[in-house]
Amino acid sequence: MTMEKILWKHIQTLKATAPLVHNITNYVVMNTTANALLAAGASPVMAHAKSEVQDMAALAHSLVINIGTLDEYWSEAMLMAAEAAHTQGKPWILDPVGAGATPFRDTVLQQLLQFRPTVIRGNASEIIALAKANSTRTKGVDSTAESNEAVAAAMTIVKHSPSIVCISGATDIITDGSQTILIRNGHPLMTKVTGLGCTASALIGAFIGITADKTEATAAAMALIGIAGELAEQQSKGPGSLQQHLIDKLYNLTEEEFYSRIKIEKQ
Amino acid sequence: MTMEKILWKHIQTLKATAPLVHNITNYVVMNTTANALLAAGASPVMAHAKSEVQDMAALAHSLVINIGTLDEYWSEAMLMAAEAAHTQGKPWILDPVGAGATPFRDTVLQQLLQFRPTVIRGNASEIIALAKANSTRTKGVDSTAESNEAVAAAMTIVKHSPSIVCISGATDIITDGSQTILIRNGHPLMTKVTGLGCTASALIGAFIGITADKTEATAAAMALIGIAGELAEQQSKGPGSLQQHLIDKLYNLTEEEFYSRIKIEKQ
Amino acid sequence: MTMEKILWKHIQTLKATAPLVHNITNYVVMNTTANALLAAGASPVMAHAKSEVQDMAALAHSLVINIGTLDEYWSEAMLMAAEAAHTQGKPWILDPVGAGATPFRDTVLQQLLQFRPTVIRGNASEIIALAKANSTRTKGVDSTAESNEAVAAAMTIVKHSPSIVCISGATDIITDGSQTILIRNGHPLMTKVTGLGCTASALIGAFIGITADKTEATAAAMALIGIAGELAEQQSKGPGSLQQHLIDKLYNLTEEEFYSRIKIEKQ
Repeated sequence: MTMEKILWKHIQTLKATAPLVHNITNYVVMNTTANALLAAGASPVMAHAKSEVQDMAALAHSLVINIGTLDEYWSEAMLMAAEAAHTQGKPWILDPVGAGATPFRDTVLQQLLQFRPTVIRGNASEIIALAKANSTRTKGVDSTAESNEAVAAAMTIVKHSPSIVCISGATDIITDGSQTILIRNGHPLMTKVTGLGCTASALIGAFIGITADKTEATAAAMALIGIAGELAEQQSKGPGSLQQHLIDKLYNLTEEEFYSRIKIEKQ
Repeated sequence: MTMEKILWKHIQTLKATAPLVHNITNYVVMNTTANALLAAGASPVMAHAKSEVQDMAALAHSLVINIGTLDEYWSEAMLMAAEAAHTQGKPWILDPVGAGATPFRDTVLQQLLQFRPTVIRGNASEIIALAKANSTRTKGVDSTAESNEAVAAAMTIVKHSPSIVCISGATDIITDGSQTILIRNGHPLMTKVTGLGCTASALIGAFIGITADKTEATAAAMALIGIAGELAEQQSKGPGSLQQHLIDKLYNLTEEEFYSRIKIEKQ
Repeated sequence: MTMEKILWKHIQTLKATAPLVHNITNYVVMNTTANALLAAGASPVMAHAKSEVQDMAALAHSLVINIGTLDEYWSEAMLMAAEAAHTQGKPWILDPVGAGATPFRDTVLQQLLQFRPTVIRGNASEIIALAKANSTRTKGVDSTAESNEAVAAAMTIVKHSPSIVCISGATDIITDGSQTILIRNGHPLMTKVTGLGCTASALIGAFIGITADKTEATAAAMALIGIAGELAEQQSKGPGSLQQHLIDKLYNLTEEEFYSRIKIEKQ
């Protein structure tokens, strides 16, 4: 099967199996990511209490940790959930929102990396900051570096922790150190909607819960959101309508639309 | 007056009186439920601080407690607010999101039930779990049991606590132990939008604040959201547009649309 | 230059400079205000951890503090951030959501006022409550007083703290004690969308980060959201679609639309 066909098969499997995805994510995107997961076919649960994160991680097919609006309590809960996932061999994804912006974020990220996330997805600035905690200051949560500048940083990360790194941007770069996949879908207007990076991470979280090959899972999520975003943008007058149409398109994307749009390259 | 006319009258009264509805609800749905309450004519306030929940409960016409993203602090605040509502004779509704999923949720729910919610609304899995804490494990927050299987569970709850139970699903079942009302409105696409169950609970919270008959209040809320959802779905291409059109329809639903759509049965 | 031209220039400067706006705001509006800030051209960051609010305030061009869903932890973090902004001479805005509703809110607000917000924006009830903490009880978060009744209250505030006060309503009143600006844009349907007052405050937060004249900055934000709201309402069937169209219009508002709509008066 071609990579395109494999990814489409994963997208169909997600709808058929409706995996339970446990999210410990930021306040800004909880509604959007829950809706994106439902639209794509997954079953989201948001739960962050120290009294239940281990139980919830055990119930779920996979775990999403996103540090966007972290604080001391939430970071402890994230560590408990990440440890539970790691111990139980459950796949989990780390979204290092705002890595490098403050020492607090970098400290929590270093602790989370101990539990070896299956996948890490961030923009170029975040991946660089994650690799070299004190090398650069990110400007908040938007990326100021180019994706391909972050590839070297990604390689450092995968060497020390057997994770897949996804650097999202105009071109998404997915690498496990040996193979690299490039995806050139999406639209610049997507950067004007809050939390679409977070949504991409949540979708990766869904796919790694149902797919043995985690690189393929990551590529399926990034192709899905990129193509859905392109098609949604065609119907939109601005970021408000894009957000709505994107959710619709995650739900009703057709095979024909997928194959006619996908721009994927294996290196 | 027919039941249909009584419910429409309550929907009009809500718009005319704009009751203050105090919500202690989950992060995922705060925006959606605040917008739904405003669109239907209520005045929502979200407040969860231990330093003010009792004051806010005293100001409000009614209280909504939804445990979706509970933690230790929030559950303590929920208990304080529920106790204040109970002591002051204010109506309140409990939404037991994810009941049965973790021991923590079940413990908090048992404590909340002490303060005798006026109404409990959940899906079939949640109502079963609430009745028999260790009988079943819900799969996250989506329902895996059929509504009518949960009727026996509802009867157990109303026997021990003088509450009205609303089991939502393809058919909504509302019972106070002596009379039962069935509502067959809504559309399956509504299950692909996050938090519409929570929105139903928030609307029930609004109606119990203005209506002496709490069973009628519950039926008015379920008919309103079901019919608004059906009409919204007709204009929608997926769950993203459904969410938006539903809010619009809660705002602009006409008497004619209401009467031509309502499917209600008293048993 | 006319005031109209000055305000349009500020709106263009916001898009050109994309200032980092640090928000400590309420859960209900985080998604909406982040999207509004992005659409208008700013770069939002939401961060509330005591371990990083001072660092984040230092990185940002300006700070937005909104007490909508405050609790004990959040209010301490707000005070730390406000103090950091005050010490570093960074502009910050206070949105006193629900001022007067509970003693807890009033206590926190009194503490925040110590750090002299650059701008305070609230509805008439909130501004009155802020000026005379025990004079009136607001009904939740909606305004029950008229804007012009609050002018006397605003004058008291600006006398004791060198802040600009913006009383939003059918007519927005912006005063620094010596000059007063009135803006008559907007549409009543905007009061049926949750958090548009909070969104106005967030936009003021963006403009005070890039503009020397903070009165002009406040006027630019209020004119922008008022005009965008009017134009969005024309395309809307209710509050659900208004929320979406408003975000689109913050993004794509044209110079012609701005000049043909603006209703501003200097007193």
